[in-house]
Amino acid sequence: MGLAERILAGEIRAAARLMKEVDDNVPSAVEELKKLYPHTGQAYVLGITGSPGVGKSTLVDKLITAFRAEGKTIGVLAIDPTSPFTGGAILGDRIRMQGHATDPGVFIRSLATRGAMGGLSRSTSAMVHILDAMGRDIVLIETVGVGQDEVDVFKTVQTAVVVTVPGMGDDIQAIKAGILEIAHIFVVNKADREGADRTMAELAMMLEFNTYGEKDWRPIVVKAEAVRSVGVDDLLEAIGRHRAWLGQGETLTNHLRERARVEFLEILKETLSERILASLEEAGRLRQIIAQLAEKETDPYSVAEGILKERLRG
Amino acid sequence: MGLAERILAGEIRAAARLMKEVDDNVPSAVEELKKLYPHTGQAYVLGITGSPGVGKSTLVDKLITAFRAEGKTIGVLAIDPTSPFTGGAILGDRIRMQGHATDPGVFIRSLATRGAMGGLSRSTSAMVHILDAMGRDIVLIETVGVGQDEVDVFKTVQTAVVVTVPGMGDDIQAIKAGILEIAHIFVVNKADREGADRTMAELAMMLEFNTYGEKDWRPIVVKAEAVRSVGVDDLLEAIGRHRAWLGQGETLTNHLRERARVEFLEILKETLSERILASLEEAGRLRQIIAQLAEKETDPYSVAEGILKERLRG
Repeated sequence: MGLAERILAGEIRAAARLMKEVDDNVPSAVEELKKLYPHTGQAYVLGITGSPGVGKSTLVDKLITAFRAEGKTIGVLAIDPTSPFTGGAILGDRIRMQGHATDPGVFIRSLATRGAMGGLSRSTSAMVHILDAMGRDIVLIETVGVGQDEVDVFKTVQTAVVVTVPGMGDDIQAIKAGILEIAHIFVVNKADREGADRTMAELAMMLEFNTYGEKDWRPIVVKAEAVRSVGVDDLLEAIGRHRAWLGQGETLTNHLRERARVEFLEILKETLSERILASLEEAGRLRQIIAQLAEKETDPYSVAEGILKERLRG
Repeated sequence: MGLAERILAGEIRAAARLMKEVDDNVPSAVEELKKLYPHTGQAYVLGITGSPGVGKSTLVDKLITAFRAEGKTIGVLAIDPTSPFTGGAILGDRIRMQGHATDPGVFIRSLATRGAMGGLSRSTSAMVHILDAMGRDIVLIETVGVGQDEVDVFKTVQTAVVVTVPGMGDDIQAIKAGILEIAHIFVVNKADREGADRTMAELAMMLEFNTYGEKDWRPIVVKAEAVRSVGVDDLLEAIGRHRAWLGQGETLTNHLRERARVEFLEILKETLSERILASLEEAGRLRQIIAQLAEKETDPYSVAEGILKERLRG
């Protein structure tokens, strides 16, 4: 049996193996992903984002426990960008999640960002597809939620949860329209801290000013103290409500199309770049171009246009 | 006179106009950028990164004041990703920097992240080229420093400063190798807070464990309280030392090549994606592909390969 078949049979080691191949950019991995794709779309994909220190992982930990109590199997993807601020948080968090390490119903994987041309979104969607195809009921993606890559990742989840704490940054009123369109649920965690009610009120007011169509989801704001398990039930209920709302005809179709669009564009873009870069490097041409650019003998725009003219048909 | 000529003559309005055209993706903007490129490479590009709330902007504000006192002209680029956490901080920061708003020697510009296919790095390098070509002595890039896009941006600056505060996240020891290779100076800001000495010690120890070649720069750690202007002179001195170190033969050549490499690959990648995406959308084919993917009639890997086969020569 090939890797894909073993993954479809639910074999954890085969899934871990394919994930490693995806990480290492092994060419045959794509063939396995092709076989898995028709079997995806069954898992419920939940995204949790928030700055380091807001208590995301404690919350994730509590959610895992609750989902496991319902008998659901879970895959967790922790996105770990190359950064001084988040790398640390997630390392610690992984240790904290070790409570589930011996449970075969919980599969935890961290994802680092890639090199020169590789992007985070493509590997994340591959990992989600693997967990989905192996039959995980729930895929939970945890990110620090900053950067375009992660915004792209959040466009592909069914339910997007944004975690914040009282008095975060220059206050909640400055939250940008971009994330408002993505977030379905806001959690004000560490609600025992000063200013929790003010943050709750500001969030509610901000949402008030947003206009929602009849078919649009109006975000829910949840107050929590994850370390004491306070508010976790409210969060679960909010997630359940959003899931039920999304599970309807046109809404679901639109979501699946948006998800397919983001995933496809990412895969197209990266495959394309990889291919062109490889051929430039092979011919020793990249080194030459770079030396010319550094000496200002030419400019990068003209060189890029020349390469496109040469390599693109039609 | 064209925009490029007016920018080379130092005209602020022309620079602002071209920046807007770059933002709006006006095709003729590329022609102006081509004309500017040979005149770039004069400005000193300084990057400052750190999580929201570490006091980056207060520090930037103090640096601007100090550079202005030396008679230097400055361009500031504030990178503002679509995020709940950073959007807010930078909005507030922009107001805080208004003290320099009436000074024609200080040009402040914020950069948002872009849509489906657009990336942050390409527009950032275009903005740096414009400020550089218009004769700014110093270009200061401020980012929250998370996400691959921003790591790419930091690879193109001359001096990279990472700002942190005592007790940030799961402690300094978890700082990833990725940023260690990029950062030239670390600032422990808000040093009046508890744990500042511990953070300083941890940083020093972490740097101790890193191996530096003879030709490599060993990062400097600076302790600061930017609001009270404490440590700003030390930071300026550290920046000066790094600048002097970098201004030497082979080191500088290597830096200029690395910068040219990152910029070129970004421009190539995005121009390529844009071109292919435009042709797919024009033919109404993208909509069709997405519907097929959402219905699982095909998989994104096979579709991407098919398009490459069709469109790529050689």
